[in-house]
Amino acid sequence: MPTILGQNQYGKAENRVVKIVRDGDTHHIKDLNVSVALSGDMAEVHYSGSNANVLPTDTTKNTVYAFAKEHGIESAEQFGIHLARHFVTSQNPIHRARIRIEEYAWERIATSDAGDTKHSFVRKGQETRVSQITYDGEKWEIISGLKDLTVLNSTDSEFWGYVKDKYTTLREAYDRILATDVSARWRYNWTDDAEPMPNWEKSYEQARRHMLHAFAQTYSLSLQQTLYQMGTRIIDSCGEIDEIRFSLPNNHHFLVDLEPFELKNETADGAVYFAADRPYGLIEATVLRDGVEPRIPVDLTNL
Amino acid sequence: MPTILGQNQYGKAENRVVKIVRDGDTHHIKDLNVSVALSGDMAEVHYSGSNANVLPTDTTKNTVYAFAKEHGIESAEQFGIHLARHFVTSQNPIHRARIRIEEYAWERIATSDAGDTKHSFVRKGQETRVSQITYDGEKWEIISGLKDLTVLNSTDSEFWGYVKDKYTTLREAYDRILATDVSARWRYNWTDDAEPMPNWEKSYEQARRHMLHAFAQTYSLSLQQTLYQMGTRIIDSCGEIDEIRFSLPNNHHFLVDLEPFELKNETADGAVYFAADRPYGLIEATVLRDGVEPRIPVDLTNL
Amino acid sequence: MPTILGQNQYGKAENRVVKIVRDGDTHHIKDLNVSVALSGDMAEVHYSGSNANVLPTDTTKNTVYAFAKEHGIESAEQFGIHLARHFVTSQNPIHRARIRIEEYAWERIATSDAGDTKHSFVRKGQETRVSQITYDGEKWEIISGLKDLTVLNSTDSEFWGYVKDKYTTLREAYDRILATDVSARWRYNWTDDAEPMPNWEKSYEQARRHMLHAFAQTYSLSLQQTLYQMGTRIIDSCGEIDEIRFSLPNNHHFLVDLEPFELKNETADGAVYFAADRPYGLIEATVLRDGVEPRIPVDLTNL
Amino acid sequence: MPTILGQNQYGKAENRVVKIVRDGDTHHIKDLNVSVALSGDMAEVHYSGSNANVLPTDTTKNTVYAFAKEHGIESAEQFGIHLARHFVTSQNPIHRARIRIEEYAWERIATSDAGDTKHSFVRKGQETRVSQITYDGEKWEIISGLKDLTVLNSTDSEFWGYVKDKYTTLREAYDRILATDVSARWRYNWTDDAEPMPNWEKSYEQARRHMLHAFAQTYSLSLQQTLYQMGTRIIDSCGEIDEIRFSLPNNHHFLVDLEPFELKNETADGAVYFAADRPYGLIEATVLRDGVEPRIPVDLTNL
Repeated sequence: MPTILGQNQYGKAENRVVKIVRDGDTHHIKDLNVSVALSGDMAEVHYSGSNANVLPTDTTKNTVYAFAKEHGIESAEQFGIHLARHFVTSQNPIHRARIRIEEYAWERIATSDAGDTKHSFVRKGQETRVSQITYDGEKWEIISGLKDLTVLNSTDSEFWGYVKDKYTTLREAYDRILATDVSARWRYNWTDDAEPMPNWEKSYEQARRHMLHAFAQTYSLSLQQTLYQMGTRIIDSCGEIDEIRFSLPNNHHFLVDLEPFELKNETADGAVYFAADRPYGLIEATVLRDGVEPRIPVDLTNL
Repeated sequence: MPTILGQNQYGKAENRVVKIVRDGDTHHIKDLNVSVALSGDMAEVHYSGSNANVLPTDTTKNTVYAFAKEHGIESAEQFGIHLARHFVTSQNPIHRARIRIEEYAWERIATSDAGDTKHSFVRKGQETRVSQITYDGEKWEIISGLKDLTVLNSTDSEFWGYVKDKYTTLREAYDRILATDVSARWRYNWTDDAEPMPNWEKSYEQARRHMLHAFAQTYSLSLQQTLYQMGTRIIDSCGEIDEIRFSLPNNHHFLVDLEPFELKNETADGAVYFAADRPYGLIEATVLRDGVEPRIPVDLTNL
Repeated sequence: MPTILGQNQYGKAENRVVKIVRDGDTHHIKDLNVSVALSGDMAEVHYSGSNANVLPTDTTKNTVYAFAKEHGIESAEQFGIHLARHFVTSQNPIHRARIRIEEYAWERIATSDAGDTKHSFVRKGQETRVSQITYDGEKWEIISGLKDLTVLNSTDSEFWGYVKDKYTTLREAYDRILATDVSARWRYNWTDDAEPMPNWEKSYEQARRHMLHAFAQTYSLSLQQTLYQMGTRIIDSCGEIDEIRFSLPNNHHFLVDLEPFELKNETADGAVYFAADRPYGLIEATVLRDGVEPRIPVDLTNL
Repeated sequence: MPTILGQNQYGKAENRVVKIVRDGDTHHIKDLNVSVALSGDMAEVHYSGSNANVLPTDTTKNTVYAFAKEHGIESAEQFGIHLARHFVTSQNPIHRARIRIEEYAWERIATSDAGDTKHSFVRKGQETRVSQITYDGEKWEIISGLKDLTVLNSTDSEFWGYVKDKYTTLREAYDRILATDVSARWRYNWTDDAEPMPNWEKSYEQARRHMLHAFAQTYSLSLQQTLYQMGTRIIDSCGEIDEIRFSLPNNHHFLVDLEPFELKNETADGAVYFAADRPYGLIEATVLRDGVEPRIPVDLTNL
């Protein structure tokens, strides 16, 4: 045969699982989108169509729902660890499982008289929390993060001193809006069942908070500088995280030219901007704890 | 000519305008998506292509940005009123202007040490606030509302006692999840420049809060009942609002059948649900103050 | 009670039904997205939550699938007629049914040696065909059309002679690209079971073709003029259609300014354009057969 | 400093460029979405914000438009090669350029009397063609492909003989619909300027055609088998291609259970299916010419 099979994986993607936990009258909610990808001795199904080694994707879906009942969902990461361990240890042909999870946050609806309600929720709608849990039967790799967290500084951003070639027309900026939709993935240094796990929920909240603070507190000469500060702040503050990768679109806000209408736009009391869609700058980089090998894939987008 | 021209309108859609107001070091942000639609003596441009009565859509775009500077953006409604009045009163051929606005909310990034930052923001990301301002030179029609506000009650919802025909297989439910993405439009009874305007910002917050409370506090025998309670609560509580229309998808959360795995799903400590995409129930209705004529268009969706 | 119930409707939206018809080895495919909306004596379910008059949305879903088997899917319109008639005639409390259908077209995969395959298909992917069938027990209203049919003329379009006010900066154009995503809805004059129905499939193909020809063959001084020609051509050519409404975004293609790079962009052998996203002109109008009352709702978009 | 910088890249993403070529009255169109990503000596901009090595993303945008005029767009690949070479050879700090391009196909509007029009187009709307051109100053890597090509076989597909564990409930299938949205990326073995380039346009058409034929002609016992046949057919038929990776969702079409309505669904003359959204099987694999090292990244999706 002139062709051979390379890397392959399969499973059920986007299993939408909602778990309600009842603590008396007070309910709690976990809302996940779980994707399973399994690899192993899968050559034959590609070559001949024999499914003798294939656990159906439908079964992986069933397992997601059954495990949500059997093990609960303490955190996305913990839930993914249960699943990945199960597939690799229970099926001989499966040598590697990768579980990807999106998590949607909810908050309680507050009523004026009685405070927070016990079983009424409104979706928070801000960022989507993400996690990728990979297990090969020996070592764990846990990459967590978030996407679509939109932030904006209305000042403390400049851009000048750049290279100018024959195609350069951009004017230097000494006070501009800096805005982006943060997509971040951070890798935990926990890899071994013998070591104590991080507190996944607490770690997420801390990483997110440090990232927001770094964004707000960095006087920025370039989005790259802001990115690096955001990564460094997380690695400095979170000993359990060794590596982080960002994909940051530069959401351009252009000062509108109002001169034709005899208006000065940029004045002491404010200004008007056009928020552009496409094209946009796209800044991507990995920040690493010194001495660490990078493992997070480079491509967080397809563009 | 065997054909005639019916209702027509034109303008620039989706002008993305961001206004930063500077109050010393403290900045404020308004983030809008503004669509202009003008009507009037426009037969000739359709029949012969003569643009003699046509103010270019590009001009309507320029006007949006110039007015954001000249008049500021006190609220989406107030901004739309400035725009609509301008088009109708400054151009003879234009007899009617309809301004539609989406507003995206932001909140300040809080830093642990210093509290809220002065010019750093994170997009709230929950519902999108919407408004439609229509002016014909005499009367105003202001319809405001929101979309994509996702809410969920994890109990206090039943569904039984319905009609059963030969195609009915649904099992009655005595305790189910009730979840929806609220799309609501409410009409203000303010129509006349001679009357004092409502406080648009405050009215929005109140209508939203009452709606959430009614959703949380209604023990529901059908989504229609919940809808009606939400509408009634707003009209009871907000004297400036006479009519409200809802389009509420029933975001189905199906109890997963775990019997094949020898698991009982519905237990005292909780349950696992499959959150379905399509199809979904879709419940739409108008609630009116008694004695009022409905004016909000029936179609909030195209499905 | 200080509030009353206005227009209301309910049903299952977005039932994705695929019908395979087998004619020996040769298969045929119909791929629909069907949304049901029912109205009638529904006050009680809103006021008290009593479902005594409510046929469950789940039942309407079941009916869609059962009817695809029982009646087949000759056309989207014919299928919708079967459904609407059933709901109105079989359920006393239901006085009006509106069925909306999206249809996705497929074509056969052609193999080099053997020509068209018999049961292998590729989705055409161009426009989405749409239909809305409404029945009140006496009269039918059939509105069909399409959306997302993207067309472009690379010349034979001008725009000049328009109104200029203090906010006008646009330069007149004597040769520009004209491009739009056609969204069209046309209303058939068939309303009565006693009259012979149009051939829905053939009528769709003819209306689509005439519309494309009118777009291609109109030397355009404004998008409004092109719109009117498209509508007139359909009404002139299709006796079964009395009214058509268009919503046409002006997909702006801006000539890029290459002067800073010492390049002349607009030359005899062509030019380079920036295809913009937002904002865009939006032109909407109804074209009617003379003497006919308009019935197609004005709002085809929410912007 | 406790952190270091890892892989990084930046540039302007999603430059929407449309090129009209005029051959007398006959026009031709190329419609691209071009994303630029540059890497090199970029540590300083991350560490200190110094932009001394940074060619602005705005300049990379200008270059895209200027090159569309200067060099034309013979093919997406050829256009990307011009761009990548320019960035790497003209800027010392830039060591690597990656150009990603999406291409949207158009076809001429045919008029009944006069055949194809000369400057009127309708967007084809089927798959999106994609290409990624990478250059490090020495070697080229060209990965092309497509996404969102939706195909369906209404028979000749089975699925049985799979592993059954305690979570398996799936029934074996001996005649099912097989449908997927093809996302494919193939790598050319051309890497060296000294070698003659493939004919990019012709190669794309051939790869696409062979892939469709393999999909149609494979009697399938699993989607993995179909995938492997599709890859093998391309590598067998296209000597210029050494590697191909697929990401194929299994677009489930479930036979609807019509037994409760006393209907047999699966009959000789056809059947009715529910086309499901989520979850879906996801099958991903690389097929390689024997002896070749894989280079296409594993992740074509983020799920």
